[in-house]
Amino acid sequence: MNNSTPARFFHTFGGGEEGTWLVERIHHLCGDGLPLVKRVSIFTSPEVDGSKGWSWTLRGVTSNERYVTRSEKNALGERPAPLGRREATRAALVPIRKSPAWWTMPQDERRAVMEDQSRHISTGLKYLPAIARRLYHCRDLGESEPFDFLTWFEYASTDEWAFDELLAFLRASEEWRYVDREVDLRLALDGSHS
Amino acid sequence: MNNSTPARFFHTFGGGEEGTWLVERIHHLCGDGLPLVKRVSIFTSPEVDGSKGWSWTLRGVTSNERYVTRSEKNALGERPAPLGRREATRAALVPIRKSPAWWTMPQDERRAVMEDQSRHISTGLKYLPAIARRLYHCRDLGESEPFDFLTWFEYASTDEWAFDELLAFLRASEEWRYVDREVDLRLALDGSHS
Repeated sequence: MNNSTPARFFHTFGGGEEGTWLVERIHHLCGDGLPLVKRVSIFTSPEVDGSKGWSWTLRGVTSNERYVTRSEKNALGERPAPLGRREATRAALVPIRKSPAWWTMPQDERRAVMEDQSRHISTGLKYLPAIARRLYHCRDLGESEPFDFLTWFEYASTDEWAFDELLAFLRASEEWRYVDREVDLRLALDGSHS
Repeated sequence: MNNSTPARFFHTFGGGEEGTWLVERIHHLCGDGLPLVKRVSIFTSPEVDGSKGWSWTLRGVTSNERYVTRSEKNALGERPAPLGRREATRAALVPIRKSPAWWTMPQDERRAVMEDQSRHISTGLKYLPAIARRLYHCRDLGESEPFDFLTWFEYASTDEWAFDELLAFLRASEEWRYVDREVDLRLALDGSHS
């Protein structure tokens, strides 16, 4: 287990004509969509070079865990799934916004919906280490950020079915009744197609 | 009770020669202090006019609740303590940073330290509505923010003893073992002295 301070680092995703990730498809699930783009670039900063003519940019910051308990943290720690693995040539960027009804709930009620009713954490665990995941927070970076979270997933092309299964489970859950904007971008690492 | 979406708004505190709040004293409790200043200004934005020569600026954003349960939220809602009350001519700005040991704890352990062991929420409740409070988050606004939280309190001059009592209780708590930087600025509204 990693006992260092949870690192906070900013990543910005730029959608446009450039980037190492090729967009295979964009699925607009609910709320406003995002303009279609050919490629996605990832920058390790909260700002990007504006001269590149991005169609959109989305920024987020990693943070400490908000819901996970000790036993869950230990279970997650036993199945490490690092990003950047050579075989993980497919990725998904799924920006999500939750409704006012979610954010006005106190902590215990949000936790109850997320795990007791929706099995979000325990289900995600089943897909480790195949589906690597990183959560970026954006809700508190500005007074009107377009999304609350950017979720990023990486997996081998042969595991995309598993990722689809995981998403289908979550989208049918009680927790997803509080999602009011969601876009699903599927990406392939440039050069990874045979 | 207020069921609207928790507002996120940015406030920046500027310490220097200008501002409606006069600094009565600054107490450096642990970690690096802050330069002494005469006055504090409050801006409703994440940036301030740099030409004013602030000795320091501290920014934070309001957010959703991270620990409060439904029953606690209801109890807090029954004792509303708005900011800006005419009689509340005294204020305290207490910037706080918590240690890596705090931030690596999962949610259930942080909650257990904060309330089960330290009675942070239930003790604060006892001082409502005399001591109005607002919490600003700053930890995730940058990769190296100087503090994790800015806590702001307002009260009548006749209630400063109660505020001191509350702070003494918290500073003796288990939770405060995880505080590694804390500064306590006591302020008086300009013109409020007889």
